[in-house]
Amino acid sequence: MAKIKSGKNISKQEVIIREAAILFKTKGYSAASMRDLAVAVGVEAPSLYNHIGSKSELLQTICFKVGNEFMDYVDIVEKQSSTNAEKIETIIRFHIKMMLQDFNEIFVANHEWKHLKEPYFTDFLVLRRNYEKKLIGLIETGISNKEFKSINPYIAVITILSAVRGLEFLHRHKNNFTNQTLENDMVNHLLNGIKQ
Amino acid sequence: MAKIKSGKNISKQEVIIREAAILFKTKGYSAASMRDLAVAVGVEAPSLYNHIGSKSELLQTICFKVGNEFMDYVDIVEKQSSTNAEKIETIIRFHIKMMLQDFNEIFVANHEWKHLKEPYFTDFLVLRRNYEKKLIGLIETGISNKEFKSINPYIAVITILSAVRGLEFLHRHKNNFTNQTLENDMVNHLLNGIKQ
Repeated sequence: MAKIKSGKNISKQEVIIREAAILFKTKGYSAASMRDLAVAVGVEAPSLYNHIGSKSELLQTICFKVGNEFMDYVDIVEKQSSTNAEKIETIIRFHIKMMLQDFNEIFVANHEWKHLKEPYFTDFLVLRRNYEKKLIGLIETGISNKEFKSINPYIAVITILSAVRGLEFLHRHKNNFTNQTLENDMVNHLLNGIKQ
Repeated sequence: MAKIKSGKNISKQEVIIREAAILFKTKGYSAASMRDLAVAVGVEAPSLYNHIGSKSELLQTICFKVGNEFMDYVDIVEKQSSTNAEKIETIIRFHIKMMLQDFNEIFVANHEWKHLKEPYFTDFLVLRRNYEKKLIGLIETGISNKEFKSINPYIAVITILSAVRGLEFLHRHKNNFTNQTLENDMVNHLLNGIKQ
């Protein structure tokens, strides 16, 4: 029987999660089967269960891996002794880097989270809302600091998060710019738009 | 047999298209059946066919209705004797208004167009690309006019279109701001971010 390819820097479970993210993104969670996943990983279906529990556990793992990564990052940024504009800039850059680097997992967390079972569905919704609230808080403080214009902070957060999420569509095109240009242009666009 | 409710301002076909958009959005095009549509419209399935051809024709109608509406609008705006910043502002406002007004149809055009059959699939892709090209052209002229900063016009267009498209997620929330605040804040955010 074929073995799951793993190496020094990536465990068998990580290989499975990576392939599951690609599969859930391409086929959609509902249509994807553990048999499809076994084919993608290159093993027989039963041997997958040595490493993971079920399809729905895989979705949970992907969604909360992504969600917690963003939450942990914003927790660190909040504590930095920088301006609120700098904090928002750091967070936008992180979003863009993650979209370019962990695209499949973020796509699944953004689109397929609706298939999470309870209590994970509600937990994930709460995680997203709390994440949004933290960003709204940073913008609110920036408004009272006069760093940002007098805007509705929720609308500003929706604008920023949606713009960054739109990088999904970039994957369709061959682009004539570097990732660094993309990051700098988007950050400037989204930050200069609200700065005093 | 029940009759399709129509009135002075809305034809039977328009009622069917409106209900089809809601259905395709909620269930997804693939999972939605003509039987579901008949239930939504409140008639027997066979009588739908007095007004429309097939499920795939309905998807075509919705996608090209939306696509052509945006294209026609940008064609008009291009000819106006205003600055390029004003033109981009007018277009962003139109996008936001349409997202709030024709939400279901735009959602279907954005998400379900992949199910279009050829030649409609390719035609729709070309329509979208041409629309993007027109916006890129407006930004490019604005850059040479020194109205806009020296940015990558494609990245600016992706940022604007993605941000506006993100209004999809607003429908989940009860919001404490008016549509006018939403429109003004987003326009200012997205336009001030690239203005010289």
